[in-house]
Amino acid sequence: MVTTSACNGVCCRLLKALALALALIAVSGVAQADVPKELYDALKVDASASPKGLHDALIKRYKDPAQGAGPGALWKYWEPIEFSKYFDPASFYKPPTTVKVVATREECVGCHSSYTAGWVRMWKSSAHANLDKIRKLTPKDPTYYKKTKLEEVETNLRSLGKLGTSEALKEVGCIDCHIDVNTKKAADHSTELRMPTADVCATCHLQEFAERESERDTASWPNDEYPKGRPSHALDYKSVVETSIWAGMAQREIAEGCTACHYNQNKCDGCHTRHSFSVVEARKPEACSLCHSGIDHPNFEAYMGSKHGTQYATLGSTWNWNVQLKDAFTKGGQTAPTCQTCHFEYQGQYGHNLVRKVRWANYPMLPGIAEGIKSERSAHRLQAWVQTCSNCHSGRFASAYLDLMDKGTLAGVVKGNEALAVVKKLYDDKLMPGQLTNRPAPPPTDKDGPAQFFQLFWSKGNNPSMMDLYGLDLVENVTSKLHVNLAHVNPGGWAYTQGWEQLNRNYTEIMDEDTKMREMAALKDRVAKLEPKRTSLLNLDSTHRASLGGLGGVLLLGGATLIGWRRRWKKSDR
Amino acid sequence: MVTTSACNGVCCRLLKALALALALIAVSGVAQADVPKELYDALKVDASASPKGLHDALIKRYKDPAQGAGPGALWKYWEPIEFSKYFDPASFYKPPTTVKVVATREECVGCHSSYTAGWVRMWKSSAHANLDKIRKLTPKDPTYYKKTKLEEVETNLRSLGKLGTSEALKEVGCIDCHIDVNTKKAADHSTELRMPTADVCATCHLQEFAERESERDTASWPNDEYPKGRPSHALDYKSVVETSIWAGMAQREIAEGCTACHYNQNKCDGCHTRHSFSVVEARKPEACSLCHSGIDHPNFEAYMGSKHGTQYATLGSTWNWNVQLKDAFTKGGQTAPTCQTCHFEYQGQYGHNLVRKVRWANYPMLPGIAEGIKSERSAHRLQAWVQTCSNCHSGRFASAYLDLMDKGTLAGVVKGNEALAVVKKLYDDKLMPGQLTNRPAPPPTDKDGPAQFFQLFWSKGNNPSMMDLYGLDLVENVTSKLHVNLAHVNPGGWAYTQGWEQLNRNYTEIMDEDTKMREMAALKDRVAKLEPKRTSLLNLDSTHRASLGGLGGVLLLGGATLIGWRRRWKKSDR
Amino acid sequence: MVTTSACNGVCCRLLKALALALALIAVSGVAQADVPKELYDALKVDASASPKGLHDALIKRYKDPAQGAGPGALWKYWEPIEFSKYFDPASFYKPPTTVKVVATREECVGCHSSYTAGWVRMWKSSAHANLDKIRKLTPKDPTYYKKTKLEEVETNLRSLGKLGTSEALKEVGCIDCHIDVNTKKAADHSTELRMPTADVCATCHLQEFAERESERDTASWPNDEYPKGRPSHALDYKSVVETSIWAGMAQREIAEGCTACHYNQNKCDGCHTRHSFSVVEARKPEACSLCHSGIDHPNFEAYMGSKHGTQYATLGSTWNWNVQLKDAFTKGGQTAPTCQTCHFEYQGQYGHNLVRKVRWANYPMLPGIAEGIKSERSAHRLQAWVQTCSNCHSGRFASAYLDLMDKGTLAGVVKGNEALAVVKKLYDDKLMPGQLTNRPAPPPTDKDGPAQFFQLFWSKGNNPSMMDLYGLDLVENVTSKLHVNLAHVNPGGWAYTQGWEQLNRNYTEIMDEDTKMREMAALKDRVAKLEPKRTSLLNLDSTHRASLGGLGGVLLLGGATLIGWRRRWKKSDR
Repeated sequence: MVTTSACNGVCCRLLKALALALALIAVSGVAQADVPKELYDALKVDASASPKGLHDALIKRYKDPAQGAGPGALWKYWEPIEFSKYFDPASFYKPPTTVKVVATREECVGCHSSYTAGWVRMWKSSAHANLDKIRKLTPKDPTYYKKTKLEEVETNLRSLGKLGTSEALKEVGCIDCHIDVNTKKAADHSTELRMPTADVCATCHLQEFAERESERDTASWPNDEYPKGRPSHALDYKSVVETSIWAGMAQREIAEGCTACHYNQNKCDGCHTRHSFSVVEARKPEACSLCHSGIDHPNFEAYMGSKHGTQYATLGSTWNWNVQLKDAFTKGGQTAPTCQTCHFEYQGQYGHNLVRKVRWANYPMLPGIAEGIKSERSAHRLQAWVQTCSNCHSGRFASAYLDLMDKGTLAGVVKGNEALAVVKKLYDDKLMPGQLTNRPAPPPTDKDGPAQFFQLFWSKGNNPSMMDLYGLDLVENVTSKLHVNLAHVNPGGWAYTQGWEQLNRNYTEIMDEDTKMREMAALKDRVAKLEPKRTSLLNLDSTHRASLGGLGGVLLLGGATLIGWRRRWKKSDR
Repeated sequence: MVTTSACNGVCCRLLKALALALALIAVSGVAQADVPKELYDALKVDASASPKGLHDALIKRYKDPAQGAGPGALWKYWEPIEFSKYFDPASFYKPPTTVKVVATREECVGCHSSYTAGWVRMWKSSAHANLDKIRKLTPKDPTYYKKTKLEEVETNLRSLGKLGTSEALKEVGCIDCHIDVNTKKAADHSTELRMPTADVCATCHLQEFAERESERDTASWPNDEYPKGRPSHALDYKSVVETSIWAGMAQREIAEGCTACHYNQNKCDGCHTRHSFSVVEARKPEACSLCHSGIDHPNFEAYMGSKHGTQYATLGSTWNWNVQLKDAFTKGGQTAPTCQTCHFEYQGQYGHNLVRKVRWANYPMLPGIAEGIKSERSAHRLQAWVQTCSNCHSGRFASAYLDLMDKGTLAGVVKGNEALAVVKKLYDDKLMPGQLTNRPAPPPTDKDGPAQFFQLFWSKGNNPSMMDLYGLDLVENVTSKLHVNLAHVNPGGWAYTQGWEQLNRNYTEIMDEDTKMREMAALKDRVAKLEPKRTSLLNLDSTHRASLGGLGGVLLLGGATLIGWRRRWKKSDR
Repeated sequence: MVTTSACNGVCCRLLKALALALALIAVSGVAQADVPKELYDALKVDASASPKGLHDALIKRYKDPAQGAGPGALWKYWEPIEFSKYFDPASFYKPPTTVKVVATREECVGCHSSYTAGWVRMWKSSAHANLDKIRKLTPKDPTYYKKTKLEEVETNLRSLGKLGTSEALKEVGCIDCHIDVNTKKAADHSTELRMPTADVCATCHLQEFAERESERDTASWPNDEYPKGRPSHALDYKSVVETSIWAGMAQREIAEGCTACHYNQNKCDGCHTRHSFSVVEARKPEACSLCHSGIDHPNFEAYMGSKHGTQYATLGSTWNWNVQLKDAFTKGGQTAPTCQTCHFEYQGQYGHNLVRKVRWANYPMLPGIAEGIKSERSAHRLQAWVQTCSNCHSGRFASAYLDLMDKGTLAGVVKGNEALAVVKKLYDDKLMPGQLTNRPAPPPTDKDGPAQFFQLFWSKGNNPSMMDLYGLDLVENVTSKLHVNLAHVNPGGWAYTQGWEQLNRNYTEIMDEDTKMREMAALKDRVAKLEPKRTSLLNLDSTHRASLGGLGGVLLLGGATLIGWRRRWKKSDR
């Protein structure tokens, strides 16, 4: 008995139409995950291209240094360490020359069953080693989709000429990924061995690679808030190696701490850990937490502190993690979203492009971000978020919350900018502690200024001052935490444990320091006026340099500081 | 062969008597959970009243603004935002006018199976949608208690005239909670829809609601440490909306971060998440962690860092969470307490009143708390704690630990008060940074002073100073963390990671700042004495205002600051 | 078809030999866990000694105050509180005199089934109460090893004369651990009851006790970085009770927060929680986290933030935790290491000595540690680590990462030492805030100095200053966190959330403070020069003591401060 009021059923029909549309999206989403149109446009490939056509275009771009491959524009400033080859194999990996063996498929497994046995055990329990089990799946099985996936993989391999027309792929073993897929009988360990990069995975998993690579094309910013294609997993290595202080740091072992997350551009095992490549792992929030956590973007912590995270923590053990994301609620019994539920989804479809709904990009105080939040692009993406939330909440609820999130974040930006201006003015007035006496120049990759990014990772004498760091905190950490906690609905996170209360503290630190430094300067001036004229002539200097002799030996004179740095920069063997 | 020594068996008999008493409590606790006498007294209802009698008295008080319902005494200072209606539906919720449908029970489910499908899926797996399954439970099933519960619910509905004498409740569907329980065939979505508040749940779950509401009556304080009935879940919304800075904050989206926990007074789904209302979820520590965590009361973190939490983390997956709290150890295999084990228990019975054993209430430095710990009321509650712990530990062990907890907390209070006095004295001596030059008045809901609560969430110029925040930290965060970690037996938490080491740090910050500000003031005075007389006449002012011109434009003059605030306060439509 | 290149197969043969050697280690490790030779040497016991021979030698050393038993060298400074008896039963525990019962084995269980029922329930589900189930295990069962273990226990008991030659141990009940194993029919609760210490467990579990006790012998330091045998679980109580500020603290309840972890020397239930003594619990990371977490050594947090921890978090619920550590990957399906995997292992064998591969010992800035890292001993241990990692990674990968870890840590030490020197110089120049006016002497157990350990837990007036704490942070917390996060492969942990970014912040705080204090001193000097001569004669004092009168009453004069302390130190009843 659905009836209508004065509106003649318009709304009712609209509601039905909406429900139908959503149902249709759900059905069409079943058949095929989503590669955005933007990727085909960027690659100038037709959406109906053969797997080989798409593959070759993707790989050409992927391997092009001009489009982000390799050690980047600041390469002259840094050298890899021994471990770097595991983060950027294409640039730095070479097979170990100590192991001079030509081994068959079976011999790889045999030898490594003793040596590095863990690899083999994990592989043996993986889908890669059990393709026949997948072939036997029936439609009743919630993981039946894997059979379809395997057929798709074989289609790809045939298109690439790596599998016969009627040949079935027997397994994916060591030799397939580390030498070449389904191609060689044996290979030379000391010359042919490769450390698989994302393009190697793409040989079989073309759809997923294309989705991932499409992040380059959908991460677009109207006001150049970020460079085109960033931030994204597809260009995360480029983003780190082209960061000035990363390239300029002498302590390469510390710098590789950044690379240890920023390597998804180069490899797929950031989320799909070798050699199990478990989808169950990759579907759980902790898979993301490895990188999306911490002082500047506590995405995982914020999620876990939310009602959504609470459901995961208390009920997640009863959910079936073997089903696909799109079936997680219907077939898997899921009752609350994980990271993947919301961030892999776009307009009802699920895929490996995670940036199509990005609006704030974690850092609300970055130039242009807050302004851009009112743009048409941002409004479009906001609407996509409302659709995401509408899987479980009413559209009205979703819109009201997202509006709260935006306005709460903007309140933080206003407060943050007020405080940041005070930091900048103190710097302009040359009143930072030690600013005139002991503020050495940064590495040549960077230029000095108030609250600069390099100061998070480099320090010498009074560069940075705490005032610089308070300012940096605003931009990098405090307003980011405010937003991230709002975005993930973690109340304590945005109101007091992190977020607003921290922002007030930061604001207070800045105002306190500003008042003290200005009062000190004023007092120095008063004293200078009292001193005999001769001293007065040297007033400015003496005021600020009075303590120069007592700085504990850290005084730095121009180029002298650079000696230590140059040692790193001189590289003969390139 | 139990025999006796010189004592003639007195102690032995005492021990047996105690064991018997405890066993009896356990048995009587089985039959019926516990509604405290204080509630019946407060409502002037007889303990043998009919469900309707108890229900009506409870609801009358619950909905009475004079007894805490609605937006509170500071309502003139704030306006709700769009999202506020979900935290306080009784005050702010109105059905969406865009959906003009009159729908039956079945049509609700049908339409929402497409639109907001998550709701329906969760409900379908809930007890509410499967009452017949509950009716088929046999005494062997560890969840047999649910059958008894269902019979109790039906008794309540019959008493309220919502269920026929021989009628069985078929299900609890959308229409029951969002319109009226078991009453209407169809309802108008745009006019009749309600967002269920706690009193709606009370229609069926009277026992639980009565237990919850009894917190108002058992949270009593001999020395007015807290207002009557607080802190409690039953009045947690009142406690936030009547907090001056909460009402006075311009940034309503931030303020709603507080409300996002403080809404249990209004709704039950803080712990029993809609639309599964899973008891398994509500029995796990993470259900509490959503609110009981963070910088000022890390109850969850402290628990997880304890031996108890370790047991939960390592063995909890083997416990049967479907059994009632009282059966958790015997039938559920539980080997360590959760939050619920200790805080839902009182003298051997389990119920939704969680405040009957409260003594420290998280904040040991709040006025009166430490003094009250030696009161008779506190001693009585301490004894109840010993009984709680005695489920697994000897009474001697429990008493020794609780004594350690009390004395450790008191040591923190002594240290905290010593430092807080230094903060207050610096304020009284007008020596806080910027105190005379740039300390704007707070919003009119608050009054200025040293280390005031509003300073956690509001700042302008040099109000607060860091010294204020150091003082606030003592009261709000540091001594609280010390106590909470002691109370939950997290060693690192009370000795060094949080607690005592942080308290020493805070003390040191205060002493450092005090010395520096007083040395600066003394130096200013010495300089003033050296300056020509004319300047000297203006000495006090010039000393403190010397830098006034350089404050970066944040100088605030009287009422001018208030313009931004008043915008929020002018509300025409009330 | 393994063939060789120009090297004539040398490398290939080497690889085979290596694989064989590793396989052999794995096999020999199966039969028997590892008691290091160092223990037999230290005890002067032959490795083929009878259980009784080994047991008696172990217990003799264990109970010897000269070798670490009991309240230690600083015992005259402190008194136990009521709860202390549970951390050091051998020194402080006495049976409760209120319970005057002589009870049999069955009567213990009977009475405590009512009183402290939790104990009995946990015990009933433990191996101790179900020895017959263990006897029925067949070799197919992954926990079959427990049968072997039980036979070993019975051999030990027979050797000690506590079990007849053909007698089978029926159970391990209350009376066995709390009175004597398999010896008495009944015992007097008020006089004979004991709180089991580690030597009690050793009666049966000799192998595990010997392994644990061997930490005393393998924790050796070439440059006296630590005292012999420390840090270790075997002497962790000694290490705390002989820490000067621990013994000197007036707040004994706070001090017991340290003891609450540092009691493994005395008891085994830190990891094997009474009365389940579950091996599943002890095999999970959270068992370690209770102590190995927090501000100065976030071992657990670092692990959980790593790829290893991610695997545990996402897949751990599918691993079989009932199998032994050595079978965890092969039979248990484990895919990543836990704490136990790496720290219980040494050269392919698993045992309760966790310190044989220790090199950095968590605190890289402790004197001698960084220097020692290049020693032969350290190189040997590094090689043992490479072997550990080689269970899953190539040796080349392991070596590259461990090199990254060492160099990254050393980079932190260099930076830390530069900043620490500035702290020390400011102290030497007597320029710390309040250093000349309000720096009371520490408790007599300690001596004043810059950045002293006691300042983490004790403070009075301006002792410590924040500068002291900044320096302490470097040594105790910041460089430790840098290293621990590097060691556990938590990228954010070493690069920015903790570690390097924190170290830069700490460095900046120190440089900021140094500059400010020196500028203030210089300004004071300038003012003094301007003041009339008479004042100038008192220059030094007046400069620093100008604000003495206004210190809020916290001025301390010599011995007056000590009154409060002495109250604790005077102990008549010893």
